[in-house]
Amino acid sequence: MDERFEALRFDGESLILLDQRVLPTEETYHHCHTTSEVEFAIRDMVVRGAPAIGAAAAYGVYFAAKEAKNEKEFNNLCTFLGNARPTAVNLEWAIRRMQGIYQANKTKSDLLELLLKEAHEIRAEDIATNKAMSKIGNAVVPHGATILTHCNTGALATAGWGTALGVIKEAFYSNKEIFVYADETRPRFQGARLTAWELMEAKIPSKLIADSTAATLIRDGKIDLVILGGDRVAANGDVANKLGTFMLSVICKAYGVPFYSVVPVSTIDFDLASGDLIPIEERDGSEITHVGETQVAPTGMDVYNPAFDVTPHQNITGIITERGIIYPPFKENIARLKRGEHL
Amino acid sequence: MDERFEALRFDGESLILLDQRVLPTEETYHHCHTTSEVEFAIRDMVVRGAPAIGAAAAYGVYFAAKEAKNEKEFNNLCTFLGNARPTAVNLEWAIRRMQGIYQANKTKSDLLELLLKEAHEIRAEDIATNKAMSKIGNAVVPHGATILTHCNTGALATAGWGTALGVIKEAFYSNKEIFVYADETRPRFQGARLTAWELMEAKIPSKLIADSTAATLIRDGKIDLVILGGDRVAANGDVANKLGTFMLSVICKAYGVPFYSVVPVSTIDFDLASGDLIPIEERDGSEITHVGETQVAPTGMDVYNPAFDVTPHQNITGIITERGIIYPPFKENIARLKRGEHL
Repeated sequence: MDERFEALRFDGESLILLDQRVLPTEETYHHCHTTSEVEFAIRDMVVRGAPAIGAAAAYGVYFAAKEAKNEKEFNNLCTFLGNARPTAVNLEWAIRRMQGIYQANKTKSDLLELLLKEAHEIRAEDIATNKAMSKIGNAVVPHGATILTHCNTGALATAGWGTALGVIKEAFYSNKEIFVYADETRPRFQGARLTAWELMEAKIPSKLIADSTAATLIRDGKIDLVILGGDRVAANGDVANKLGTFMLSVICKAYGVPFYSVVPVSTIDFDLASGDLIPIEERDGSEITHVGETQVAPTGMDVYNPAFDVTPHQNITGIITERGIIYPPFKENIARLKRGEHL
Repeated sequence: MDERFEALRFDGESLILLDQRVLPTEETYHHCHTTSEVEFAIRDMVVRGAPAIGAAAAYGVYFAAKEAKNEKEFNNLCTFLGNARPTAVNLEWAIRRMQGIYQANKTKSDLLELLLKEAHEIRAEDIATNKAMSKIGNAVVPHGATILTHCNTGALATAGWGTALGVIKEAFYSNKEIFVYADETRPRFQGARLTAWELMEAKIPSKLIADSTAATLIRDGKIDLVILGGDRVAANGDVANKLGTFMLSVICKAYGVPFYSVVPVSTIDFDLASGDLIPIEERDGSEITHVGETQVAPTGMDVYNPAFDVTPHQNITGIITERGIIYPPFKENIARLKRGEHL
């Protein structure tokens, strides 16, 4: 049940990205041939979603090794790439992993081939990880469940298949007769533009709602569980994710609705004690004042536009990973995961 | 400190409405000369906000009396007008009040003059009511407060001055050095388009945010109180208001932030036992899938688009009216208000 489309692939010369800025009305592909082009694609959100950013950055590091005259230049390019967006940990994770390959092989003649192979591996591992998480996560989805999701966590947010939307697709394809409500996800409408598009591609029965509609659906017992992604998980289980996630978590807690975050282990920042320490990207005010060409706020109005928020672990039922579901106590169980123990 | 603009006035022949569909980028006036034109203006949201809808409808009833050949036709036109939008109680309230004048004077030669006089009175009373509520409500605003508001409740939502935004303006003009966060208020962006415009007109220090941003601001202690309007208040104190209000109320309750609804007594539906019974208008899906000319969701995506939600009285600190602030126990105190007793 794979997708008709490939949102992120390498054709031997270019990193080819399904341009997420113009979906769902246009399906066009954006080609990157340089580190700088990959950095732009991440910063301008041609590609977005923590795992997809990681995979794209891996190819960016490959380009950096091709472009750099020496190790210093290479490292500078990696730093430049790593600063494209601050919140998702997968970006640094992927760059660090690629830099490890560079360090280990920098005197070898096949350095570039080894880097490209590693980027391919990061991409392939991400897809495999997503498939594994989907099967694990499917266990928490009851038959006939109505699921609420937020932002986009599907094939478009990853190297392929998806995290939270991967679990939802797995539940759907295993004939659980689910129904999905997708939050539109202001300000950039990833739910409306991308998740709705993926839900329609997969023919999953679903409806799109304004973010504020979720609260009433949850209170009225119309949502059986919330499943969404994560951009960075702290060692205590706090989850930074797309703006709106925290609000949902409070409503779920108030009305006893299970709330799951689905993330690959690469999204866990084992060195970060708590979510308070996660840097939250503040994006341009024009994301709030304009939608496409339409101006929705008066010229000159001040805006506060954080792209993410932090959900405290107390509001989270479980964190679904490729190595199992992390349940409370999160700090202890994340430490066990770090030590390589079974969950 | 009155507004530079008049959003709703009558020039002797036409009801003239500042067209709220095109603010803040265009400031144009929409003229209504018939019941049908007033009904359209309410339904299409040229004019919106519970008190403004009531005042506009009063002039609509005057047009109905001009147009109708007999009482039956008049009543049919009133019913037609009353069905323009279902949630705000002020619409039926104003029509019923105008019908009372019609009944008492239908054989008199100056019936039309009396109806027009009553419409003017409804408009003038609304402005006076708003000014009274603002002074009463100002008492709950601490010096230096940061206030969060939702949707638009200013001069544009009423016959003039405003309800919740009236309180905010009163606090600002009494030099309380307040700061305001305005929710953009999806799907129709009344916060971005109208409240931001009114805040800039009044030069009140403020920032516009996505609706989902409010939760983190509230948790982090950055909001001292929430002040917003109400479209219909049930006899137990449940408040139907713009979509997103209920969500805010849950967050405020979880983090101990005061939450006030500001409404004229005409918004209280004394005959309705609880908020569960308030009809919630479901609007067209295109409000979610399109913003202006920009399509933000794939063609054919199903949408659920309720325009309002209901906040249970348990989540409300107080309901500010022109006759005082209603505090818990709401049912008992609203009954006292109905009996004409002091609060």
